This record gives sequence, C-alpha cells and structure tokens, in this order.
Amino acid sequence: MDLATLLGLIGGLLVVLAAILVGGSAGMFIDVPSILIVLVGSLFVVLIKFSLKQFLSAVGVAAKAFKFRLPDTQALIDEVTEIARIARKEGFLALDGRDYSTPFLKLGIQMMVDGHPPEVVRTVLERERLLTLERHKWGAKVFTALGDVAPAMGMVGTLVGLVQMLSNMDDPKAIGPAMAVALLTTLYGAILANMVAIPIADKLNLRMTEEARQQAMLLDAITSIQNGVNPRVVETLLNSYLPPKLRKAEA
Amino acid sequence: MDLATLLGLIGGLLVVLAAILVGGSAGMFIDVPSILIVLVGSLFVVLIKFSLKQFLSAVGVAAKAFKFRLPDTQALIDEVTEIARIARKEGFLALDGRDYSTPFLKLGIQMMVDGHPPEVVRTVLERERLLTLERHKWGAKVFTALGDVAPAMGMVGTLVGLVQMLSNMDDPKAIGPAMAVALLTTLYGAILANMVAIPIADKLNLRMTEEARQQAMLLDAITSIQNGVNPRVVETLLNSYLPPKLRKAEA
Amino acid sequence: MDLATLLGLIGGLLVVLAAILVGGSAGMFIDVPSILIVLVGSLFVVLIKFSLKQFLSAVGVAAKAFKFRLPDTQALIDEVTEIARIARKEGFLALDGRDYSTPFLKLGIQMMVDGHPPEVVRTVLERERLLTLERHKWGAKVFTALGDVAPAMGMVGTLVGLVQMLSNMDDPKAIGPAMAVALLTTLYGAILANMVAIPIADKLNLRMTEEARQQAMLLDAITSIQNGVNPRVVETLLNSYLPPKLRKAEA
Amino acid sequence: MDLATLLGLIGGLLVVLAAILVGGSAGMFIDVPSILIVLVGSLFVVLIKFSLKQFLSAVGVAAKAFKFRLPDTQALIDEVTEIARIARKEGFLALDGRDYSTPFLKLGIQMMVDGHPPEVVRTVLERERLLTLERHKWGAKVFTALGDVAPAMGMVGTLVGLVQMLSNMDDPKAIGPAMAVALLTTLYGAILANMVAIPIADKLNLRMTEEARQQAMLLDAITSIQNGVNPRVVETLLNSYLPPKLRKAEA
Amino acid sequence: MDLATLLGLIGGLLVVLAAILVGGSAGMFIDVPSILIVLVGSLFVVLIKFSLKQFLSAVGVAAKAFKFRLPDTQALIDEVTEIARIARKEGFLALDGRDYSTPFLKLGIQMMVDGHPPEVVRTVLERERLLTLERHKWGAKVFTALGDVAPAMGMVGTLVGLVQMLSNMDDPKAIGPAMAVALLTTLYGAILANMVAIPIADKLNLRMTEEARQQAMLLDAITSIQNGVNPRVVETLLNSYLPPKLRKAEA
Repeated sequence: MDLATLLGLIGGLLVVLAAILVGGSAGMFIDVPSILIVLVGSLFVVLIKFSLKQFLSAVGVAAKAFKFRLPDTQALIDEVTEIARIARKEGFLALDGRDYSTPFLKLGIQMMVDGHPPEVVRTVLERERLLTLERHKWGAKVFTALGDVAPAMGMVGTLVGLVQMLSNMDDPKAIGPAMAVALLTTLYGAILANMVAIPIADKLNLRMTEEARQQAMLLDAITSIQNGVNPRVVETLLNSYLPPKLRKAEA
Repeated sequence: MDLATLLGLIGGLLVVLAAILVGGSAGMFIDVPSILIVLVGSLFVVLIKFSLKQFLSAVGVAAKAFKFRLPDTQALIDEVTEIARIARKEGFLALDGRDYSTPFLKLGIQMMVDGHPPEVVRTVLERERLLTLERHKWGAKVFTALGDVAPAMGMVGTLVGLVQMLSNMDDPKAIGPAMAVALLTTLYGAILANMVAIPIADKLNLRMTEEARQQAMLLDAITSIQNGVNPRVVETLLNSYLPPKLRKAEA
Repeated sequence: MDLATLLGLIGGLLVVLAAILVGGSAGMFIDVPSILIVLVGSLFVVLIKFSLKQFLSAVGVAAKAFKFRLPDTQALIDEVTEIARIARKEGFLALDGRDYSTPFLKLGIQMMVDGHPPEVVRTVLERERLLTLERHKWGAKVFTALGDVAPAMGMVGTLVGLVQMLSNMDDPKAIGPAMAVALLTTLYGAILANMVAIPIADKLNLRMTEEARQQAMLLDAITSIQNGVNPRVVETLLNSYLPPKLRKAEA
Repeated sequence: MDLATLLGLIGGLLVVLAAILVGGSAGMFIDVPSILIVLVGSLFVVLIKFSLKQFLSAVGVAAKAFKFRLPDTQALIDEVTEIARIARKEGFLALDGRDYSTPFLKLGIQMMVDGHPPEVVRTVLERERLLTLERHKWGAKVFTALGDVAPAMGMVGTLVGLVQMLSNMDDPKAIGPAMAVALLTTLYGAILANMVAIPIADKLNLRMTEEARQQAMLLDAITSIQNGVNPRVVETLLNSYLPPKLRKAEA
Repeated sequence: MDLATLLGLIGGLLVVLAAILVGGSAGMFIDVPSILIVLVGSLFVVLIKFSLKQFLSAVGVAAKAFKFRLPDTQALIDEVTEIARIARKEGFLALDGRDYSTPFLKLGIQMMVDGHPPEVVRTVLERERLLTLERHKWGAKVFTALGDVAPAMGMVGTLVGLVQMLSNMDDPKAIGPAMAVALLTTLYGAILANMVAIPIADKLNLRMTEEARQQAMLLDAITSIQNGVNPRVVETLLNSYLPPKLRKAEA
C-alpha cells in the first residue's frame, strides 16, 4: 500500500485521538447512534447517487489502487529498454511467456507476440487505457460524494440533537452533556469528510493521472518496439518522462 | 425502479428517523407551518426559475427515469447481435413487427424496415438522442434548483422563528421549545436538499450520461447492420463498451 | 407576464408572510432602517459594479422580458409554414404590410420584401440575435449581482445591530428585542437574494437561451423561404425543434 | 470619474453610517487596533501574493481607470467617420498633428500617417490592445485578492478578541463591550470586501471588457480607412456596435 | 528572496501579534496540543493526498522559488541582444564558457554552441519549459491542499474542545477559558490557511506563469539568434514583452 497515504491516514487520526485523550477520557467521544447517523446515513445517501454495481465496484477499485503500487518510472524505462533489446536481437517470439511488471505491458507484449498489426495493438491498448481511467474515475467519484455528504449528515444529526435538547430543558445540568452529544455528529462528519473521504478521492485522482501517463509512455514504447526502432533511441525517447536530474547520462 | 436509489432514499430517512426516536417522542419534530415554509416555499421559488410546462414535465421525466430501468449493456449487445443475424439471413423485412427492449432501438429498426436511407436513419436517431438528453437535463435542473433553494428557505424559516422568539422572552421556559421549533425549518431544509433533491439530481445526471452512451452504441450498431456488416464483427465492435472481464471470449 | 414566475414570486412571499402571521403580529418584522440598509445599500453596491446606463437598462430588459411572453414554438412553426406557402404561391411582395408575431420575424420578412440578398439578410439577423442575447445577459448580470450583495448587506446590518446591542446591555429585557431587530437585516437579505434576485436572474438566463433558440429557428426558416425551399420541407425541417409527441403526423 | 461607481461607493457607506448613527453614538464603532488588523493586515497578505511592482502598479491602473472615462461609443463612431472623410478627401497627411479622443486611436493614426503598411499597423495595435487588457487584469486581480483576504482577516481579529474575552470573564459587565469590539473586525472585513474591494474588481473587469471592445472597433475602423473603404460604409459597419434604437437612420 | 512576499508574511503575522499583545499577555494564545492538532494534523492529511516524494520535492520547489529571484525582463532583453551581437560578429563558438543569468538560457546557448540543429534545440528547450512548469505546479498544489485542510483541522480541534467543555460544566469559572482554548485551533487554522498557505500557493502560481513567459521569450530569442536574425530585429521583437513606457526608444 502507498506509504504516504497510509502514514497520513493513521497519523492524522492519531493526532485527533491524542487531542481527545489529553483532555480526559475518550468515552464521551463515542456515541453509537451518532456514529450510525453519520456513517450509515452518509453511505445510504451516496447510494442514491449511484447504482449498486458502481457503488461496490468503486470500493474495489479504491482498495486495489492502494494495494498495488505503481511501478517506478525509472524501473519501467529500464524494463522496456531491455524488452526492446531482446526484441531486436532475438525477435518478438523471445518475449513470449515472460513476466512483466504491469498487466497493461503484458497485454501489449502478448498482442505483439501473437502477431497483431501495430494499428490494432495501438487501438486495443488505447481503449484499455481509457477504460482504466473511466473505472478509476468512478472510485474517486464515490469518495468525493462521501466527502460532500458526510458534513451534511453531521449537520442533520446535530440539528436533531439540538431540537431534542431545546425541547426539554427542565434539568439545567443535562444541557451541557446533551449539547456535547449533539455536536458529536458534526465532529464525526468533519473527520470522515476532511481526513478520510476527500483526501482519498484526491489521491485516487492523482494516481489515475499518473497511471494514465505511465500507460501513455508504455503505449509509445510498444509502438516503437513493434516498428523496430533502435533500443537506444527508445531509451532516449522515454527519458523525457523523467525530471532532468534523474536522467541517466546518455552515453 | 432503480434499487440502489430506492434503498438509499428509504435507508437514509430511516436512519434519521431512528435518531429521532432514540431521543424520545417524534412529536416535537413535526411542525406543520415549518413543513409548509420549507416544502411549499421551496417549490414556489423553484417555480420562479422555470416555466410551468418545464416544471411539470421535469417531474414526469424524473418519475419515468426511476420507473424504467436501463437495459443491461450485455443483454443489449446480445439483442443487437441477434438482430444483425436475422437481418443478414432473412433481410430487413423479417425484423418488422417484433418487440424491442428500448423505444430508441425500435424507432431505428422501424426506419430501417421502412427503407429509409442510412444517412436519414442516422440523422433522425442522432436528433432523437440529443432531444432525450435535453429533456433529462431539465429534470436534473429542477432537482438541482430544489437542492439550492431548500436550505435557503430553511434559513428564512429559522430567522423568522428566532425573531419571534427574541421579541417575546417573558417566559424563560418557553425560550427553549421556541428555539427548537425555529431550528426545525433548517433541519427540514437540510434533509430535503442533502438527502433527497441533490442525490436525485446527481442520479438523473448519471443516468442521462449512461442512456446517451447506450444510445450511441445502438446508433453505431444500427448503422453497421444497415451497411451489411458481418454480425460477428458487430458483436466484436460493441464489446468495447464492456469492461474487459465481462467480455465474452471471442471465439 | 410569465405565469409560473409571477405565481412563484407571490406564492413564495405569501408562505413567508403566513409563517410570520401564524407566530403573532407582523409588526415586529417591519423595521425601516433595516429595510433601508439592505435594499438601498444593496442597490448602491450593485451600482458600483456597473455604469448608470447599464444599471437602468437592465431593469428595463427584465421588465420587458416578463411582460412579453415568448410565442409558442408550435404556433411559430405554423406561422412560418404559412409564410412559406404565401411566398411560394404569390411571391415575396405578398408578404408586405402583414402583421408578424415577433419583431425579429418582422425584420427578416421586411428585408426579404425589400429585396436584400440572402447573405445580407442572414448577417443582419445573426447580428440582431447576438445583440439581443447580449442585452438580456446584462439584465441577468444585474440581478445576479443583487443576489450576491443582498446577503452581505444583511450580514453588515446584523453586525452593526449586534455591536450596538452588546455595547449597551444595562437593561436585560432589551437584549432580546435588540437582537431580534439585528437579525431582521439578515432575514431581509436572505429573502431578497434567495426568493427574488437569484430566481429572476436564473429565469432571465433561461428565457435568453430559449429566445436565442427560437431566433435560430426563424433564421433557418427565413433562409429556406428566401432560397425557395418547398413549404412542406420547411415544416418538416422545423419540426425537429419540437419534442416527438408534439410533432404533427407528417402527411 | 465614473459617476455610478462613485455614487455607489459613497451611497453604500452613507447607508451603513446612517444605520450606525440611528442606533446611537458612532464612537463605539471606531477601534484603531481593529482597523489596523483588518486594513493593514489585509494589505500585507495581499502583498505576499504579488511582487511589489505589480502591487503598486495595480493601484495606479485602478486609479487611472476611474479618472478617465471611456469615450461614448456613438461619439467615437462619429469621430472615426469624420477621420475617414478627411483621409478620403485630403489624404492621410491631413490627419497629422490633430487631437484624438483616445491614445489608442492617436497611435493608430500616427502610424498610418508615418506610412507603415496596414499589416504592421494592425499587429502593433493588436499587441497594444492585449497589453492594455493584461495590465487592467492585474488591477482587478489585486482588488479580488483584497476581497478574498479582508473577511479572513476580520475573522482572525474576531477570534483573537473572543479568546481574550473568554480568558478573562471576571467582570460580567465587561463581557458585552468586549464582544462588541471583537465583532468589529468582522464588520470591517465585511464592509471592506463586499462594499469596496469586490465591487471595484468587478467594475475594473467590466471596464476592461468594454475598453477591449472599443479598441477592437477602432482597429476595424483604422484598417478600413487605411484600405480606402468609403466613409459611409465605415459608418454602417461600425453601427453594428450600437443597440438598434441608438443607430442613426442610414440615409 | 522575494521582497514583497517576505514583507507580507512577516508584516501580516506582526499585525496579528500586535493585536494579541495590545489585549494583554500573549501566553493565553499558545497551547501546544492545539498547535499540534492544526499543524501536524494538517501535514498528515496533506500527506494522504500525495506521495512522499511529491510532498518533499514540493517543499523544495517552493523554497527554491523564493530563494532565486527571476531576472528582470529588461535586463534579460539586454543580455540576449548582446548575445545576438556576439553570435553575429564572432560566431556561436565565442559564446562558449561565458556566464548566463538563468540555467535555461545557459542550456540553450550550450546546445547552440555544441552544434545541435535548431529544431532539436527548440524541442529540448520546450520540453524543459513544460517540465519546470509541471514541477512548480506540484509546489503550488501542496500549499493549496494545506490551505484547504488547515481550517478543517482547526474546526475539528474546536469541536473536540467544545465537546470536552460541554461534558464537564461543574465549574462555571472554567467554562470561559476552556472555550478560549477550544477556539485557538480555529484561530491557528485560519492564520495558517489565509496568511501563509493560500498566499504562498498564489505566489507560486504567479511566479510559475511569469517564469514560463520569460522562458517563452528566451526560446523565441534563441531560435532567432540561431537562424541568424539581425540583433536589432531581435531586440525590437523582444520589446513587445515590455509595457510601452518601459520600451527603449527604437533608434
């Protein structure tokens, strides 16, 4: 899983937990009905906006996005340059049955090995690339929707609590704690939206952009290899995808 | 009706109802004047923004969108492939008088059977597709407007209640309940906007996009059939509209 | 005047009035200084953003937009089809001196009767159409600005009231009513923006779009008539501007 | 200076002043530290976003924009038609040394008199027009930034005041006035942003658009004159920049 | 470092500090747990949205952007005109080993000296320019994210503090100070976002635009020099990047 995202998620929540513990017992911050209204309520509202299939597949897409890291661009360039060398020296068939770092690369190589003409390979890979983008976009959209809905549900919960408290103010001592409980849903909504849902949606969008850029690079590379371009030229060409200081000195 | 939307609407409102019941009697949450100011007031304000005809037709469009489910893409591809086979073997006339899953498909087939030239069929279907989009857009726009207006009406109602409460504070015991009633319109506005109107508008926009994509696929298919493209090629072509793992193994 | 807009404006304000009357006397809701700060203050601020000429003409454009209804698309198609028939049978001169439903149509017919070449008629009408759009846009922009400014002026008024109340809290009994008066400007601002200015701006934008579409249709029709296209073909052509179920069966 | 803007600025502030005076002495509304935190603080934050040169030149651009009024479009058309007549009758040299209403027009005429070819005149004027737009955009951007920052600084000031008040609540009588002072920065921020900075930014953007349109008209006119187009045709051509009812009857 | 930005940052914070000191001791404004929740919490949440590498490199990009000032456009034009003169009189090789004001210019000159063909120089410099833009965009994005997150973390901190205060109201004297502490996180969040993070993001975006424009100018100049354009023409060409009053009188 992506280190920065995991670190940020856990670290952020630990900071809030620390702030709670410093101030006394954490017990007053846990209220099951409040958790239900924000978490379950938000999920139901998000469900209205999508179909069941999209909703479930989006969660899967997000999980998968965090489980598998994108390969390093430098490593990918090395791998592709090596492929170009083998293809040049031993022919396309020598590439059959090997292991590749991404399914996208594997699909492209397999089609090349199977002898499909370059324009077919290009069309299929381009369509594949757009479909991956589309599916990732769904994942990000569901989390964005959750980030929109959670604070609203938190506000609905707090209003419900305030109305209950205000309708029944016989015991002045109960007012403070009742209002504390009413505020809990706003707190839960703010945490769920700002520290979980929105950052994850942003991260998915970022990763989507990067994966699409890597696949564009692989598409360029495979087309070049299939057209018999010199492996060294392939490497030079792909180097433009790296920042200057990371580029290998071109021999 | 669309399952996820129905589930989300009912589930979300039940969660709020549960939160209300847990805290005591639900009676204090029902205030007829508050309901009128938010619900009727919002509808009047939405009415300002549209013409009567648009307003009414939009509700109809939404109702229809939820009543009729979009056919499954896979089933649609199977149906069109079958049509392509019949057209090839028995000629266009064999397609007359049969039943089709969508009116759009039916219109296209009928025009083909009636012998209209391909460019006329294409023009008419494309215009039909854009008109459907346009009408659905109206439905979504009315619900979006409701989602904008409802919280504002809730705030107006709460301000009216607060001014009344503040002008008359002789009985300290009445202050709490009066403020509770004042807050009710804000609560109603938040629920109407965030748990009903905005999610339905989002759902209509989503469905609109999907229907337009399905109709684009049908348009491609009908053009191919009319041009005598091989049924197997038609199927291969349409498969690109499915995610990879759902595609049938191409024999 | 447009029925839905009038109904919405009056209905919405009546609902708020009802809510006020239900809660007791309406007297406490009228405070002349508060009305001045929100209404006059907002108009002054809107004035900063425009020139005096634009400000005044915008109000006129809005008034005119509500006074004159757009002709029904169906009626307009019938009228134009009839014009095409007369032009075909009796020549362009037979169209002179008749009455037409819109000034735009009248201008086009007159230029045709006067013998201007088709490209000149088209250029002049297109320029006319864009100028009408531009002028309506000004109307909408002034109301949008009012919708932005009114809540801000309401907040300024409430802050002024709160500072006055807080600086002078000797009489506890006066605090409630003073705060009620302070809140009135926020209430006025919310009503002026959300129930009047923004809905009218939205309506003007909507009407602008519709008028531009009707004028595009008339422009197409006049060009066709001048080029001697068959009246029946003109009708068929224009029918695409109607939703399917409203189209007359084409004989 | 532009009348509507001056009227709006003074009128708006007078309305707020009147509301203050009606409620008692204005003394409690003046608090020097509060003024400093909002006004000076906002200017410092705006300074972070720009370079010193941009910041200062933007104020100059705004001042200049208000000091010099744009010439009336009608008067400009008359002037240009007259220039076209002189150029036709007496040749370009007769235009030398005369006075023109805008520097842009003067620059164009001077280049024509100096005998530069039409395409050079056009290129230089077009570049001039874009540079003027660019410089005005800076002026508007600085005021937009001020409009964003001022309410934030007002909130910072109010929070500082609230923390001070809450930390020291020994004297209940001091609470009200202390909170009044705390609210002053929010009030100042709201006035500075909503009644001064944002309206001026909007006005500068509007004027920018109008000046660019006038310069586009002058560019068209100068090109026509240099190409020897008939003065009457020049006038007809420029009339399209006026609304219909202001156009002179074309003789 | 950029003077205006440094001045604005320090000046703005001093103004807030002055407001704090005027109101009494600054001690009550320092609360370590509150600082941790806003500052550390915000950094963790920002971390979720990016990868560790992007996060760290963005800070570096920002630091570098403030340390090195962009050269003055006028000075750059003078330098490039001088280069054009030397290249004309003494040939490209005379440019070798000299010192240039920006690495971008140095790279271009070096490639020219090394004898690369113009289209290669252009392609490499254009790619370099886009990569610089891209890297600066990352810097701005991280600060924009911090500006979004900080107020949200401030609100979370305040809610935590309010819940703690409300749950435990036995000692009325402690309520004020407890609420003061609760408000501190909102204050910290507002200062961090509005007076530091957002202005720096805006500044980075502005600088990015300016640097890209300067590099576009240098790219034009180098292409002209390599194509042997007359140095005086090069100067005239580049002068269009200056406002009129700063242009040297063209001899």
